[in-house]
Amino acid sequence: MKIKVLKDILGANEQIAERNRRLLDSNNVFAVNLMSSPGAGKTSLILQTIKKLKGKVKIGVIEGDVSSSIDAEAVGKEGVPVIQINTEGGCHLDANMIGSALGRIALQDIDLLFIENVGNLICPAEFTLGAHKKVVISSLPEGDDKPFKYPLMFHVADVVLLNKIDLSPYLKFDTDTFSQTIRGVNKKVEFFPISCTTGQGIEQWVSWLLTQMNRR
Amino acid sequence: MKIKVLKDILGANEQIAERNRRLLDSNNVFAVNLMSSPGAGKTSLILQTIKKLKGKVKIGVIEGDVSSSIDAEAVGKEGVPVIQINTEGGCHLDANMIGSALGRIALQDIDLLFIENVGNLICPAEFTLGAHKKVVISSLPEGDDKPFKYPLMFHVADVVLLNKIDLSPYLKFDTDTFSQTIRGVNKKVEFFPISCTTGQGIEQWVSWLLTQMNRR
Repeated sequence: MKIKVLKDILGANEQIAERNRRLLDSNNVFAVNLMSSPGAGKTSLILQTIKKLKGKVKIGVIEGDVSSSIDAEAVGKEGVPVIQINTEGGCHLDANMIGSALGRIALQDIDLLFIENVGNLICPAEFTLGAHKKVVISSLPEGDDKPFKYPLMFHVADVVLLNKIDLSPYLKFDTDTFSQTIRGVNKKVEFFPISCTTGQGIEQWVSWLLTQMNRR
Repeated sequence: MKIKVLKDILGANEQIAERNRRLLDSNNVFAVNLMSSPGAGKTSLILQTIKKLKGKVKIGVIEGDVSSSIDAEAVGKEGVPVIQINTEGGCHLDANMIGSALGRIALQDIDLLFIENVGNLICPAEFTLGAHKKVVISSLPEGDDKPFKYPLMFHVADVVLLNKIDLSPYLKFDTDTFSQTIRGVNKKVEFFPISCTTGQGIEQWVSWLLTQMNRR
């Protein structure tokens, strides 16, 4: 019974997500659903990407947070349009929240939309939003066992970015184990080690992103 | 309507949590509900505490994970009884799961029970388990804004442990901002900076824990 209810919720979510996708496509907007644990670097990645693509790609951002608007303020300082969603305790974004937010963005004025999900390595993986790609950020300090312990998140990812590699001299982290475990749950996933602090690997990430946008 | 259903679930959970507490008390077992983001150091803290209290306090552990049993295996190597709960995708432990697990532990043989919750800074905060104290671990790499962005978790905490302070030379983290934000959402909280890698602060944490156990 419990499972049936959950399936109903996910089924309804899926339909709204498809509607969101059609709206994005009709406006020629490429959307990325960005997911990670709290503090893995979602906002930092968005800020780095905005800097790299300034003058080339028009970016918009939807910021999902349990509460507060500090991420939206940080992104807004870069001069891009930002919509804040506060879930008021909710542990993930859903397609309905994104549908409402899309109605408040001038979609004709942007090419690329980042949707920063709530910081959570579990629940956001279950809710499709209508974005074209799912990007998961993991970070060195979280440990190399995360894909093994939270498999669904790494299974649904199109790309996994391993952030904070500048900390590798100070941490025990086996990058081979990490990448092999990801491939174990997801054969097609792309994998880029990055540092939003030093900028390492950001070029490769942005290049992949532009290729995906042009391929549509 | 949505809110009413959630209240019913939480109300039912509360009743089972009270039953768990009575069972723990009648067996003279002190229980700690340990919560954090993925990779903040819950298992490391349990391992450090087991080492410190070996021969003095009989410890048992309930390991909550979405999937896998690697934490339970790591703890089991220390020779303490461990019960694994796999939530199969579920994002938090609830009182019912703990009730079942308590039936599988020889409670008369332990003094202190660690309940390692699922790695998630949101949902576990809403579900009381029947433990005597709620301990939240935050870690330096997650950033000093976490109490501001995930207020409920820091609001329900009896203690906040700030882990990975050995990484402070390599990270921007304002400990004063962090501790002040915690006090802003929770006047009575205890706060200990620690490192499970170097052992710094573990003495203070264990001393606090023993005081709480003796105070009952």
